[in-house]
Amino acid sequence: MKLTLLGTANASQVPVYNCQCPACARARHDTRFRRGPCSALIECGGQRWLVDSGLTDLAERFPPGSINGVLQTHYHADHVQGLLHWRWGNGMRLPVLGPDDPEGFADLYKHPGMLDFSQKLTAFQTRTFDGFSLTPLPLNHSKPTFGYLFSDGISSVAYLTDTVGLPPDTQARLQEQPLDLLVLDCSYGPLQEAPRNHNDLTRALETIGLLNVKKAVLTHVGHEFDCWLMEHGESLPANVVVGRDGDVVM
Amino acid sequence: MKLTLLGTANASQVPVYNCQCPACARARHDTRFRRGPCSALIECGGQRWLVDSGLTDLAERFPPGSINGVLQTHYHADHVQGLLHWRWGNGMRLPVLGPDDPEGFADLYKHPGMLDFSQKLTAFQTRTFDGFSLTPLPLNHSKPTFGYLFSDGISSVAYLTDTVGLPPDTQARLQEQPLDLLVLDCSYGPLQEAPRNHNDLTRALETIGLLNVKKAVLTHVGHEFDCWLMEHGESLPANVVVGRDGDVVM
Ligand SMILES: [Mn+2]
Ligand SMILES: [Mn+2]
Ligand SMILES: [Mn+2]
Ligand SMILES: [Mn+2]
Ligand SMILES: [Zn+2]
Ligand SMILES: [Zn+2]
Repeated sequence: MKLTLLGTANASQVPVYNCQCPACARARHDTRFRRGPCSALIECGGQRWLVDSGLTDLAERFPPGSINGVLQTHYHADHVQGLLHWRWGNGMRLPVLGPDDPEGFADLYKHPGMLDFSQKLTAFQTRTFDGFSLTPLPLNHSKPTFGYLFSDGISSVAYLTDTVGLPPDTQARLQEQPLDLLVLDCSYGPLQEAPRNHNDLTRALETIGLLNVKKAVLTHVGHEFDCWLMEHGESLPANVVVGRDGDVVM
Repeated sequence: MKLTLLGTANASQVPVYNCQCPACARARHDTRFRRGPCSALIECGGQRWLVDSGLTDLAERFPPGSINGVLQTHYHADHVQGLLHWRWGNGMRLPVLGPDDPEGFADLYKHPGMLDFSQKLTAFQTRTFDGFSLTPLPLNHSKPTFGYLFSDGISSVAYLTDTVGLPPDTQARLQEQPLDLLVLDCSYGPLQEAPRNHNDLTRALETIGLLNVKKAVLTHVGHEFDCWLMEHGESLPANVVVGRDGDVVM
């Protein structure tokens, strides 16, 4: 199993437009620190699935035939906006699997183009593909949202964003096996109170501590968390790293 | 007055993903023939306004302070999708002027970020800016849509997309003065019947014939019209040209 982080930002991306904070200034001058819309590529057994579609250059990144489909965690703009112009492909169908969100995003359901939204995933019901399986796990967010547990019989990988903490059923399911890798929403540095829809570092570390995790990679990172990391980055636990765009984490 | 066509495609863009037609094959190999989301830049008297925001690299094209705001013709995805990720700017406001469409697009009204949608334009009511004026003109489309008549006292320029034909009031207003330039929706080559929401070449030439037009530039071009043009392009009237991305037409 191979997992590549294509984008590791929150909705604002890094650099934030017109922001002069140290993290945004650094990202503007050193492209290695730029963060695009939160998304990943999972490759296993000859299959390649995009996890979320917020990047706006998907047609260039993924020529026809190079990808099996899209796994949507949810239908917020930063996770799905790239489908708006990618959808108008000719003579092909691209499956988009995700939670059964009756709203979806903008006019995508009404004018799907090549996108096939007909297969809805069901919470906790494992789907098997050629070489790997995925289990959708409900998350705590402002829209119907799934995290995904991937398994190829050798490794188990959980990709959990956007969320603050975990619903009890999801936590219980994730405690059933050790995780070789956990990719987790951590939008903010440590905050006094838990944010409403995303983890801060305090809640992210709490969640990591509840699970049997070999390695945790934080994603959905905001520029303020990047600023915090520039000063306090060494204080993270040994098995916790902050993802960067392009990182092959598994 | 300077008018640059930033994008000249219909919603599918050219090349269409996975399309092997002659026009798409040509555009894939020769970037001069690529067409991005229909949009333009109007520059006059020190002001710079973007007309429609469907391009997905607006943050890179327009650094903070380089643009006065956005004129939306309407809120279809291909004309507005670029605002989804551009909106999260820090410490500034960017006016977005357009028709009073209660729906807008996706969650832009709910989460406007730096975008200021508070100023709605009214049909036929001229607004004056430093160095030029604009008059919103209702068009025939599936969503509330304005074309714009720009005037700097020397030249008059009409930018009319998306539309099929013209409503009588709009036609009457445009007949009040000669037009140095008309930029007009022409999504299709000549068709037997008029399409529902866009001009084909037959209807576009009809509209041009009704007005006193020095030069007409066709935009919102689909790949099938590009194919037609590859065979029949020389048959266009002498004052009618087909726009290309990047063309400075005024
Ligand atoms: Mn998000
Ligand atoms: Mn979200
Ligand atoms: Mn359009
Ligand atoms: Mn339209
Ligand atoms: Zn910043
Ligand atoms: Zn084509």
